[in-house]
Parts: sequence; structure tokens; C-alpha cells
Amino acid sequence: MSESTSPDRKAQYSFSDDYSEGAHPLLLKAIFASNYTQEVGYGGDTYCELARQRIRTHLGRDDVGVFFVPSGTSANAISIAACLRPHEAVIAASSGHIVTRETGAVEASGHKIINATPCNGKLTPEIISKTLDENWHFPHMAKPRMVYISNATEFGTVYAKEELRAIKDLCEKKNLLLFLDGARIGTALSSKMNDMTLHDILELTDIFWIGGTKNGALLGEAVVVKDASLASEFEFYVKQHGSLLAKGRVVGAQFAELFRENLYFELAQRATLAAEKLSCGITDAGFPLYVATETNQVFAVLPLSLIEKLQERFSFYVWEKYGNDQAVVRLLTTWATHEREIEAFTGVVKGWNNSNQVRARL
Amino acid sequence: MSESTSPDRKAQYSFSDDYSEGAHPLLLKAIFASNYTQEVGYGGDTYCELARQRIRTHLGRDDVGVFFVPSGTSANAISIAACLRPHEAVIAASSGHIVTRETGAVEASGHKIINATPCNGKLTPEIISKTLDENWHFPHMAKPRMVYISNATEFGTVYAKEELRAIKDLCEKKNLLLFLDGARIGTALSSKMNDMTLHDILELTDIFWIGGTKNGALLGEAVVVKDASLASEFEFYVKQHGSLLAKGRVVGAQFAELFRENLYFELAQRATLAAEKLSCGITDAGFPLYVATETNQVFAVLPLSLIEKLQERFSFYVWEKYGNDQAVVRLLTTWATHEREIEAFTGVVKGWNNSNQVRARL
Amino acid sequence: MSESTSPDRKAQYSFSDDYSEGAHPLLLKAIFASNYTQEVGYGGDTYCELARQRIRTHLGRDDVGVFFVPSGTSANAISIAACLRPHEAVIAASSGHIVTRETGAVEASGHKIINATPCNGKLTPEIISKTLDENWHFPHMAKPRMVYISNATEFGTVYAKEELRAIKDLCEKKNLLLFLDGARIGTALSSKMNDMTLHDILELTDIFWIGGTKNGALLGEAVVVKDASLASEFEFYVKQHGSLLAKGRVVGAQFAELFRENLYFELAQRATLAAEKLSCGITDAGFPLYVATETNQVFAVLPLSLIEKLQERFSFYVWEKYGNDQAVVRLLTTWATHEREIEAFTGVVKGWNNSNQVRARL
Amino acid sequence: MSESTSPDRKAQYSFSDDYSEGAHPLLLKAIFASNYTQEVGYGGDTYCELARQRIRTHLGRDDVGVFFVPSGTSANAISIAACLRPHEAVIAASSGHIVTRETGAVEASGHKIINATPCNGKLTPEIISKTLDENWHFPHMAKPRMVYISNATEFGTVYAKEELRAIKDLCEKKNLLLFLDGARIGTALSSKMNDMTLHDILELTDIFWIGGTKNGALLGEAVVVKDASLASEFEFYVKQHGSLLAKGRVVGAQFAELFRENLYFELAQRATLAAEKLSCGITDAGFPLYVATETNQVFAVLPLSLIEKLQERFSFYVWEKYGNDQAVVRLLTTWATHEREIEAFTGVVKGWNNSNQVRARL
Repeated sequence: MSESTSPDRKAQYSFSDDYSEGAHPLLLKAIFASNYTQEVGYGGDTYCELARQRIRTHLGRDDVGVFFVPSGTSANAISIAACLRPHEAVIAASSGHIVTRETGAVEASGHKIINATPCNGKLTPEIISKTLDENWHFPHMAKPRMVYISNATEFGTVYAKEELRAIKDLCEKKNLLLFLDGARIGTALSSKMNDMTLHDILELTDIFWIGGTKNGALLGEAVVVKDASLASEFEFYVKQHGSLLAKGRVVGAQFAELFRENLYFELAQRATLAAEKLSCGITDAGFPLYVATETNQVFAVLPLSLIEKLQERFSFYVWEKYGNDQAVVRLLTTWATHEREIEAFTGVVKGWNNSNQVRARL
Repeated sequence: MSESTSPDRKAQYSFSDDYSEGAHPLLLKAIFASNYTQEVGYGGDTYCELARQRIRTHLGRDDVGVFFVPSGTSANAISIAACLRPHEAVIAASSGHIVTRETGAVEASGHKIINATPCNGKLTPEIISKTLDENWHFPHMAKPRMVYISNATEFGTVYAKEELRAIKDLCEKKNLLLFLDGARIGTALSSKMNDMTLHDILELTDIFWIGGTKNGALLGEAVVVKDASLASEFEFYVKQHGSLLAKGRVVGAQFAELFRENLYFELAQRATLAAEKLSCGITDAGFPLYVATETNQVFAVLPLSLIEKLQERFSFYVWEKYGNDQAVVRLLTTWATHEREIEAFTGVVKGWNNSNQVRARL
Repeated sequence: MSESTSPDRKAQYSFSDDYSEGAHPLLLKAIFASNYTQEVGYGGDTYCELARQRIRTHLGRDDVGVFFVPSGTSANAISIAACLRPHEAVIAASSGHIVTRETGAVEASGHKIINATPCNGKLTPEIISKTLDENWHFPHMAKPRMVYISNATEFGTVYAKEELRAIKDLCEKKNLLLFLDGARIGTALSSKMNDMTLHDILELTDIFWIGGTKNGALLGEAVVVKDASLASEFEFYVKQHGSLLAKGRVVGAQFAELFRENLYFELAQRATLAAEKLSCGITDAGFPLYVATETNQVFAVLPLSLIEKLQERFSFYVWEKYGNDQAVVRLLTTWATHEREIEAFTGVVKGWNNSNQVRARL
Repeated sequence: MSESTSPDRKAQYSFSDDYSEGAHPLLLKAIFASNYTQEVGYGGDTYCELARQRIRTHLGRDDVGVFFVPSGTSANAISIAACLRPHEAVIAASSGHIVTRETGAVEASGHKIINATPCNGKLTPEIISKTLDENWHFPHMAKPRMVYISNATEFGTVYAKEELRAIKDLCEKKNLLLFLDGARIGTALSSKMNDMTLHDILELTDIFWIGGTKNGALLGEAVVVKDASLASEFEFYVKQHGSLLAKGRVVGAQFAELFRENLYFELAQRATLAAEKLSCGITDAGFPLYVATETNQVFAVLPLSLIEKLQERFSFYVWEKYGNDQAVVRLLTTWATHEREIEAFTGVVKGWNNSNQVRARL
């Protein structure tokens, strides 16, 4: 996901990631509307309070802690540091964001991440049990105490309710905390494969977060903490990690708008439908997917020559080589993805295929 | 500086801190203007690049690293972690922000802070030398490797050029890095007592940062790194601390505007003049200052009964008791402070005094 | 305590510290006796088990955890890391060993040490309360959660039972853990000023350790953990810090011998009596003490010229200048200190004084 | 390596590990001989100095730093913390001791361990290159900066000189430090497969350590630091980790004896020959090895019923199931392993086999 090394945007339309856009206009408007009053600093403002109340309403519980942080890496590092003792470790998929894209932030807070090989980006009770069986030799091994999962996963796949419940049941039996990275919880809950609500997520995890940055916000994630005693101390961790913004309203106002009614889910829905359209366009043209498209991430296997042609007009991430003359590409869509750009992209794909078939026929 | 426990704003006008306001309108406008294009993530966008160039122009050097982070605590913790080896310590005034207001963020990254008793919130070569003399017993003591100072200080005082140069000279002689916390560098450079430019700050320190949050921005600070090899790795630290924002434009656009011409200094100038007016109003009424007013912080000694009366209409921080029936109060002003509120505040102060003198005469 | 930079021992007898000697012969014998059997590693051996049982007998409680570590710094760093959450801080005297002689080991595990100015090296409820009053501004300050004291202190002074009880009462009222560094608990309990037993120490603290290295052992300290759930996990911390010795018997055998009967206290008694004799010799000669001699540390104020003369035959630590022509010296005694060396030392002191008085008379 | 949970030694002879024995008699004698003089503390004693000189003589270089620490975990954690910046990671085999047996000590100092799948417990340039190819996405991934290898490995295998040189060459090309865990360097250099000297190890690594605990010492490892500036600061790290023993002589005296002539290698030789004999006894009886026996570790595949029978008289580690009715067992030998116990063990193995063949024949 080489965002920082992506090609120049000027000539190209980007399917590289879900944060190349700015904020959704309504969120920008909310920031504007919140700007001209004096407010208490560090999250004590009326907008953060309103956002907390509305999120609690969507969660169907008013007794949970809600804390705003500026980034996904801070949400993960803070949550894990807040939950674990120094000798405790977190189990994560080897494809998990804390393993592959956070510069060792979890280890920097002193904790080992025990990698497990996932299935379609997901963990299962079997995978977790196997990992526990390999990490029993105490006190010479770090003690597994938490399971980290992402929904949607880094491959865009989602957990079904029964899958999540099965993991939660195992965690309770094994005295493990279940932490869910919700950077893309919006698209996960808008997936055709999804059968859960935010309330289900709350009930089936110990701590999780709701991602704003990848779903229309300029910045900000909301960490939801169920345990009352942890919640009572959580703000210390947010501050210690440099993530307690003095002008909390900048995040509070956006979340207050996202959860005023259903904007959060409407934006995610748009991203997911755009991905579906893009995905179908590619498969209709006869090219296979690397992973089934369930949310706003499309992983397709395309010929290198086609990829090269597409790169003239579009930027996206070439994930990995696939055989000699093909590669897996990752295409991301968002609430802001233009219909016409999807058509332009799939047009090139189909055109290339036809011309090739013609060539093949000759 | 009990921001998080400040009284309700509704009934009161706040002189509590310099982040109770939102963003300056021009910065909000800049955020708007940057919103509707696709940009490269994680600081690779055109606005961060523009902001870096403009800051370098104001610094008078184009070979320095400039990195944007969301908060002052992240700016301090990241800079110190990036500069020190695990056994190295930082010397700071016991009143320094890293000592008193950052929840042990520096220690959380593994480093000892050696406290030194400041003079008017400032360190001097004598104070630093004394501290070194008390921390020589190696390898049984952490090795002093950095000096942390704030300009303006936590008491609103500023360093004169010759004071800073004297500290820098000592640091070079003793192989110490000099790090300057610039949360309020704007007001410092707008002080009557100031004789430095941003270029001087750059030349006389090893690493420092320019505060946005306390000078008109919604969020964001700019860390300036002189050392080329440190700069080449600095982004790793920003990311590891959860401070590398995916949509860097939200900070980049604001700094690009702050340093397009002189807005950054104009806003600071307003805050400093407002403080001067407030300060004079108090001293004219016959009440002493606790520390001379040099920037946007006023520390005054007022009777408890007057403080009570003022709190009916204004919120501010009661710093500490002073004798039996007085206390030190801290009043902060900003670019947004209303003239009429200053007049209202000083009006109450003068009124209280007269009525008392009358009473005293009877 | 410039051990590592002490002058050459060949020509001199050392009063520099309490670890210049090897092990007491009986402990060496115990190591020898334990050597020729196979034992379970990592503290599972019969000697560690025996030592734990005997220590528990001396403590008068058999339900406490006892853990052996190689050094005082590891005992302190491990105990503090095991008790605190990342945002929690420990209050310590500015003269405390964790502040002045452990190379930032506590900070290296992420925790802030809040320094308090002690009285004769000791903390008091008043000092602790004042420190709490200055560290209330949450979540912007690290949360005081533990009080660290040393008995004997770094100045050789000891806590009376009522002093310790008063601190413990405050700690319970303020939800603070009380941790006692017992590097010199032996000499503390052998002091004339002492009115406590090991059982009292156990009852009046939450966690403490019994120092072996400074009381006859080749190496090793025994950490006593009262809290059952902490004790059940404590070995993880010992291992993680690299302090779980594979051949635990080397420490276990020594502690089993030290606590078989009363050897531990007999050795401490000898050290304390030797210090008393040395101290009286100095005061008899008309020189003042810097701190009253209560255990095996003598702090005396001597003329620089006398110090120079003494350094011809003895090594000791020159603590700090005292006026223009005097300095405070620190002299340590142990179970192994030779009577004749004390007499030789005091002989020089008295001789110098007489000769000077003669000179004065002429 | 379930040392801490090994069965009761009384009834059984242990092949469980290489630290069930005490110290070799000559080392115990050396400790005795060092005991009755006053010495400078913290490694400044004459015995540590002598040990350093003798180790340097064996290394063939007198300009390297040599530092003594009490345990292998401290040797690894200290060396890695001393070499890496916070955002830098170490590449290690997934079977490496720092991954599987040190309770997250490396992560506790803030560093990510990037696991690589080894070949016979060893890393190769190909494995390291592949790992680098998967960890390039900067600054979003921790930066690989060090390669950790063990010689002998955790499977008892050893590196040939050309294998180590190939790794070192790659490390230099990729700007990686090469760190060698020498807990069993003695048996490695005494292996039939070995073609290196201590001097070669020094030349082909950046930092490594010589294990005492697993080769006859009561405790202690010697870390060898080539880089002069790192060596000049290394003692700070040793102290900060609680590993700078006040009475350094206890380790110094042992290493001075181990390297006075060739005792260190003679002891290792004995352990390796004992393993060879044990290994041959098992293969002669017709049972396969899991890994070829190259040093003092024997990994054999035995029927569960035979394992049960052997456990009546011997303790050893059952590594993992192997098919339905077999398991891999790990048997360790040392300088102290009794000939007759090897014969007794192999006697049971051969006896079981014959009786079974008889049964099979009937």
C-alpha cells in the first residue's frame, strides 16, 4: 500500500487508497459550524460530548467510554498499551495492520505481536488455538492475552456474526481480550456478506474502534472501551501517546455529524458499491479476482501489460507478482469515487481484452 | 493550566488557555480550499510540500527537514525519542511542559528527564552546568545528552539572543543537543523583549518546533530538524508514534497559509498586545504581577475575593495560593481575544479596587 | 559512591562501599555444597525452594511470593515495572537509589519518577502529601501510584516503625503502593534506632526486597511479593528483564544459608557496630558528622588536608565540598571490616587533630 | 525446553538441558581463590580485567570491548537495545531464542523482531533477502537493521565459515548489523562440522557473545563489542538493564579460568562427544534423528511407548508429536554427562527395539 510512494496524481485518477480524498462536504461544514465559539480543550468540548452521545445511541449502550484519537496507528497502539501488562502479547494475523503498516508501534510500547497465518485475512478459533498451543512455555514466553482482528480485514473480507462469536467464545474460555481494528468497520457493516450491527460488534468484542479517516473524515478515529475501570483511565493513555488534541472539536464535530443520522453508513455503502461495480467490470472482462470483493477493496489478477496500460491513466497499488506475466493489483474505492472513472477503468480492461482476443484469433 | 477542568464556558468568557478558540478564518478557508482534490497520503501531498517550502523560506535555509505532527506532546516525545539513545537523559526546567503536562510521555519512550530549577521559567548556563556537575557518576547515572527549553516559557517569559547563544555554546562544549519547544514561539518572537528571528532560532538550536495549535491552527505543529541523517529517518518516528496523518493536507494547508506571508506572526502579535493591555489594566489598578508579562500569558497576584468576583464572568486558571487572602492567577490571550472582554475584565479589577479604597477610607 | 572510579586498592584499605569484599565464607561453602547434583533450572531447584521457605519463616507468613534476582537495580526495575501501568508514576526521594544510581532503569521501563526532597534521606507523610498536591492535574500528569523508600536510606538513616506506619496509612488512604528497597535492610534492622522486624516490614509495605549483595552474598536479592495475583505473574517480569538465572542455586544456596538461622542479621550487626566504632573515633577526635550514624554508613565532615592524608592509606568516597577547606566523606563498613583498620583510620584522625592543636598552641 | 516444568530429578538422570549441573570444579575453585581480597566493584576488579585480557588473546585482537552479564537473555536484550534505534528491527529465525524463550525481552526494549523461517535452525542469505523484500514499505514498516543468528542454533546445528561469510557479505551490502548469540558457541566450535575459530566469529560478525552458563560456569556470558564508540557506552546499557554485578569477580574469575588455557573448549568438546555417542546409540538401534547431531543437542524420533519407558529413569524434553505414535525428543549433554548414563539410556533404547523385533517376529 505504497501510498507515500504513489505516482504523481496530476495525470492520474487514484484507486490507491481510501484517504486520497479530503473530507466529505458535510463534515467540512460541521467543522466550520463548530469553529466560532470558545470551547473547553482536550475533548471537554460540546462537540465531542455530542459525538459520544450519538455514537452511544448507535451502539445501543450508554455506559461505554468513547475516546477520539487522530490516527489508526494511535488507536491501535493506545488500545493495546492500555490493555496489556508488559509481559503480555497480542495475537494477530501476519497480514494485520499492526504487523505490516505501523512501524513497530506496538513493539515500541513493549509488547510482542505473535503472528498467525490467516485465512483470507481472517483469524479463526482453530488458528488462535494453534497459536496458543505454540506459546505455552511460561515464564519463558510472553503470555498471549489479546487477539487483534480487523473488520473489514486488510484483504477487504468481513467477519460473519457466527465467526466473530466463535472467536469471542474462545477468547473468554482462554482469558483473552478481543480487540477489533475498525479502520474500515463502515465498509464491513455495509458489505453484502455482513450480518452484524455496531451493537453486535460492541457485544462481541472487549474493545474496538470506529474509523473516521478512511470513511469521509479529515482525520479521527473513535475508540470504544467497554470495561469501566479501563475507560476511567483511558484518557491518560491517549494523552501520553500525544493523541489528546487540544481542540478536540475538530474530530468531535465530524463524528457528531457522521452519527447524527446514518451518514457514516451511507458513505461506506457508496464505497462498497463502487468496489462491486469495479470488481464486476474486471471479472466480466474475464480476469480473475485474487480475493472475493466484499467491501471497498478489489484484489484482481491482471496481465503486466494491461497494468502498464492502466497506469497511464490510473494509480493503484501493484500488490505482488503473480506468475511470470501477471500481478495482483489492489484497487480501493471511497464515498468519493467517480462513476465515470470506474467506467473508464473497466473500459480499458475490457478493451484490452478484446483487442487481445482479436490478436489471439489472428 | 487546568483546561480539562475549566468551568463551564457558557456563562463566561475564557482567559484560561490559548486553544479554547477554533481556527483562524483564513486557516479554515485554506482547509476548505485544499479539500476537493485527490492527494498523496501521509504528508506526500502538495499542501505539506508547499508548507515546508514556505517555512524553509522563513527560516532562511532550504536544507532542513520539516515534519508535521498533530500535537505538542507528540512533537516533544517524538523529537526526544528520535535524538536520544536509551541511556541518555534530557535536562529540563522543573516547570517545563514535558515535566508537568505530558503524562510522562518522555519517560514512556524510555528516557529520564533531569529536572533543574529554572529562573523565571528559563534555564541558564549556570543552571545547566550545576545539573551536569550533579550527574557525572557514569555508568550509574543516565547520561545528560540534551537540553530542553521552551520559548516562550511556561511562564510567558522569552529568551534573549545572547541568553540562547550562551546556552548553545555550553551545549556544544558539553556535547549536548539543544531542543526548543516552540508551542508559543510565535508569541515569543512577537515579544517586546525578543531580539531573535526564526532564522536565529534555527541557528542556535539543534532541533525545534513551530507551534500551530496555540497560534490559530485547528491542530498541528511543525518540527524542524537540522541534522540531515536524523531528518532522513525522522518520518519513521512520526509514524511509530501514531502522528503521521493519512490526510496530511489538514495540517499542511494551515501552515502553508500561516507562512504564505506573515500571518503566523500577525496572530501572535495580536495575542501579545492583548496580554499587554490586560496586564497594564491590572497593574494600573494597583495589583502586582507574579511574573513580568512578556508574551500572551499574564500572571497576576489578586485578592481571593476579587478572583471570586471575576469568576462570575470570566474563566481563568488560579495558579496557586499567595499568602492568606491572595492567589496567583494565569490569564491567557490569543489572536481572537475581544478588546471589550479585556476592558470588561480590567473594569471589574479597577472597580473592585476603588470600592475597596473607599471602604478603606471610611 | 564512585565505586567504578575508586583508587587502586593495592596500597589502600577500602571504606568505599559494601561490596568490595567477596562472599562470607559460609555462603561460599553453601555454594560449594550445592554444586554437585543435577537441579531443575530457573529457580526450580531445591536450594531456591529451601531459601524461600526459610525466608517465609523469618517473615512469619508462608503465603508470600519470594523471587531471586541478581542485582539491586534489577530488583527495583522489575518490582516497579510489575506494579505500575504505563501512565503511573513512582514518588521517590531525590536521593533515592532509583533516582541517582540506576542509569534511568525505571524510566527505561516507561515510568516517571516524581522526585521529592527528603529529610535525612527519608520521606514523610507530609512530603508525600505535598508531592501529591503538585501532581493532581489529570490526565495531563502521570498518576502517582507508588511510593519508593529505602531502609536503610542512602544516608544510612533508618525508619522507625511509627514513621513507616504513618507512610503506609497515607498510601492506603491515597491508593498508593508502598515499595521498600531493602538493599541494606539488614543493617537497618540491626540499627540502634530500629524497632522493626522483617515481619513488620512485610506488614507495612506492599512489596519489598532483602538485599544479599551488600550483606555478605556474592550476588543476589530476594524480592518479597504479598499480592497473590502479582506473585503469580512475577516470574514473567524476572525473566523478561534477563534476571531469571538458569542456575538459580547460586543465589538460592546463599539465601538458604543466610536465613538458616540468623547469619543475615549477624553479618549486618557486625557492619553496624564497625560503623559505630569508626563514627565515635571521628567524633571523639572532635570532627562533626554530616548525618547521624545509624547503620553501616558514616558521613563525616573532615578538613581537606586530613582527607588527603587519609587517602594515603585508605580509599573512601569524598561526597561533596563543605565550606572552603572541608568536605563530607562517606565511609562504609561491612561484616568483613577489620578492627585494626578502623583503629588505624581513627588513629590518623586523632593524630592529625593533636598535631594541629599543638601547632595551634605554638 | 521445558526446564521449569521438568520432572523431579531425584529418581531420574537429566538430559533436559545444559544448565542442570553446577559449575565445573575448576571454576568453583577460581571463585574461591578470588574471594578474600577487596576489589573495585562493578567490573573494575582484577579478575574481570584478567578475563577480558585472556578473551582478547583468544580472539586475536586486543582492541575489542568485553562485557560480562549474568544471563543469555540479558546478553541478547542489552546487545540489541544498544545497537538499534527505536524504529529499527531485528531479523531472526522463528526458532531463535529471542523469539521463543525470552518472554518478549527484545520487544520490551521497543524493537520488533521480524521472524524468518529458518533451514535446520539456520538463516541463509536467501532467507534474509526474502525477508528484506517483504519489509521495504517505509516509513510504514520498522526498518530491518540487524540480523540475529545463534551458533550453535537452537537445533544444535552449526554454521560453516562460508555460510557465515555469505551472511556477513549480504549484511554489509544491505547495511545490516550481524549479531551472533553464542550461548553455545563452545559446542559450535567443537563440532565436527565446524571450520571456524573465535577469531573468525569476531571478524565475521559485528557483535556476539560467549556463553558461560551453558558451558561450565555458574553464571555469566561475555559480550564482545567490536565497534569502539558502541563499546565506550556499552556499560551504560549493562547497568540500565540491571546486569552490572557489584561483585563482578564472580563472573570474571570464571571466565579468567575458562580462557586461561583451553578449558572453555575442552568442556564443550566433552559435551559434543557425549552427544555424538548418545546419538549413535539411538541410530544404531534403528531410530531416526529429527535433525543431524552436530553439537550437544540430540533430536531423535522415538515411539511414544519407548519415551514412556525412558522417562522412568531419565528426564528430557518431548519436543513435539511426530505422527500418531511417535514424538521428537530433545536430549542435551554437557561436560558433566556420565558415560554410564549414556550407556544406560541407549541400553533401554536398544533393549526396547530388540524385544519389539522379537514380538514382531512371533
